[in-house]
Amino acid sequence: MVTAVAAVPSLIGLDWGSTSLRAWLVGPDGTVLEERKADKGASTLSGHAAFVEAFDDVSGGWRTAHPGLPVLACGMVGSAHGWLDVPYARCPAGAAVLAAGLRRPDGGPFIVPGVLFDDTSLPPDVMRGEETQVVGTLHLHDTLRASSCVVLPGTHSKWTQICAERIVRFATHMTGELYAVLRQHSVLGRLMPDDAPVDPDAFVQGVDAARDHGELGLAHQIFAVRSLGVTGRLPNDMLADYLSGLLIGHELRAGLQWRAMAGLGPQPLALVGAPNLCARYQVALHRFDRPADLVLDNTAPAGLLALARAAGLLPLAPLESQ
Amino acid sequence: MVTAVAAVPSLIGLDWGSTSLRAWLVGPDGTVLEERKADKGASTLSGHAAFVEAFDDVSGGWRTAHPGLPVLACGMVGSAHGWLDVPYARCPAGAAVLAAGLRRPDGGPFIVPGVLFDDTSLPPDVMRGEETQVVGTLHLHDTLRASSCVVLPGTHSKWTQICAERIVRFATHMTGELYAVLRQHSVLGRLMPDDAPVDPDAFVQGVDAARDHGELGLAHQIFAVRSLGVTGRLPNDMLADYLSGLLIGHELRAGLQWRAMAGLGPQPLALVGAPNLCARYQVALHRFDRPADLVLDNTAPAGLLALARAAGLLPLAPLESQ
Repeated sequence: MVTAVAAVPSLIGLDWGSTSLRAWLVGPDGTVLEERKADKGASTLSGHAAFVEAFDDVSGGWRTAHPGLPVLACGMVGSAHGWLDVPYARCPAGAAVLAAGLRRPDGGPFIVPGVLFDDTSLPPDVMRGEETQVVGTLHLHDTLRASSCVVLPGTHSKWTQICAERIVRFATHMTGELYAVLRQHSVLGRLMPDDAPVDPDAFVQGVDAARDHGELGLAHQIFAVRSLGVTGRLPNDMLADYLSGLLIGHELRAGLQWRAMAGLGPQPLALVGAPNLCARYQVALHRFDRPADLVLDNTAPAGLLALARAAGLLPLAPLESQ
Repeated sequence: MVTAVAAVPSLIGLDWGSTSLRAWLVGPDGTVLEERKADKGASTLSGHAAFVEAFDDVSGGWRTAHPGLPVLACGMVGSAHGWLDVPYARCPAGAAVLAAGLRRPDGGPFIVPGVLFDDTSLPPDVMRGEETQVVGTLHLHDTLRASSCVVLPGTHSKWTQICAERIVRFATHMTGELYAVLRQHSVLGRLMPDDAPVDPDAFVQGVDAARDHGELGLAHQIFAVRSLGVTGRLPNDMLADYLSGLLIGHELRAGLQWRAMAGLGPQPLALVGAPNLCARYQVALHRFDRPADLVLDNTAPAGLLALARAAGLLPLAPLESQ
């Protein structure tokens, strides 16, 4: 039974990405009490005034109704083309490091820094926004804190290695963006109808092809989307999900090997993100015989709350006392 | 010294692809006597009359001036969305098989069939146009006929295995199209200036990254184009060539392994295609310690001539008698 007592909010949180803005009124246990969305991604705005206006539109009412609440934002709003260029925190990065890196534009929210992974032997890697989801994930699930792999599927999927509650390294895979540009702008999309129903079999066929023959190369295997179509071997309705399976399969192939290379031994693997996308990754992980140990929806509100606490903007540790 | 005797043409040849149309008046030794180009790719035309008109525009004058010359075309003009859907020849496919598969629309040229590679354990692969370049390559260079690997870089690169003058198997890599869509439509292109000069060092860095760390995955490694840019590690002017190197490096990594898997032992490797693109592949092959044995420009005119002879449309073997 749901109790009728209205929770008192503890935080106003924003996930302010390149293309969208989501805002939450967050309760003391990380629960989302109210949600608002706006079509005001950081890449669509230019100049301080535009950010102030979008910020006021989405959260001004809450700030008036609940004066004094801390306001935290994560995502591309903190990039060079966002509201304020907040310097990256460096790996290993946990809640304390991220909280110490919070920066605030005039009249704006505290913005969480992104994270930079900088290995001497490899190109650097960067994230903005996902670090907050990782903090929320670790806050909500103590089994992941000591050692785990947290995978955040998306336009730019992130594979993060967690040790002692900190992101020690991570790798980005452009899986979602590759799917979108290949579907919309390449020869592969031409045979795909817009309204094809989801085809789980085609998806699994693509995953298995990547698993079994991925050494033939992604740029080769995706051409099969065309050759299977023009030869009539796969109905056009199945081609989009076959491509999705190939791309996610290649991500898992590389990601699981990357994870193994870390030599950290057995550790839980968690998927964090949109449920329909996580469901695809769950199926694909099964095909690789490495099912996910935990699947979580958006953990950014809990992450923003944990960071507000770590920064001393809220009383300490009420989450633990729930 | 060039002799002043005008050669008598033996053939009118067309390379009629999706986006462009090239026509040649070909001499008896395969030399191009005249060339014409038109912006009338097969994908831009619809219906028999449109193809007849484009065909007459580009070659009508030659056909009037040289009545009775055989006319052959290769490329996407023979696809389901071309002038006439010419059934694929199947591997193993050499000049005899391809000549037997020529088909002619009313009032049009003989069209060379594409080739289908159909393995039971893998998705099929298809080519249209490159088979003619392979025939021309083998015709011009007898060292490649018994056993070789002929690589045709391009929008859809083809790696072909040759045994006994026939294409026994091949693999397509969408390297050129991936570069184009990532540059034009993905986040990676945003940092790249349009007018950056070619940067050989950046290209080599990309090739080496694919060679040394390709197991991390193409979809991961290409994100470095962004992370190197936003962290200022690589000047924006260098990013396009770094991406080019990564993509070509991944193609070589997969292609050389695919070639090794065939277990055919030492055999020459030839590059056939546009000189500036072949030059990139030459550099990249050097980085993989497997330099090309032969680099050739367009061999389609010689291929069309060889196919016309194999089909009995011309006296036999004058090339050999030159």
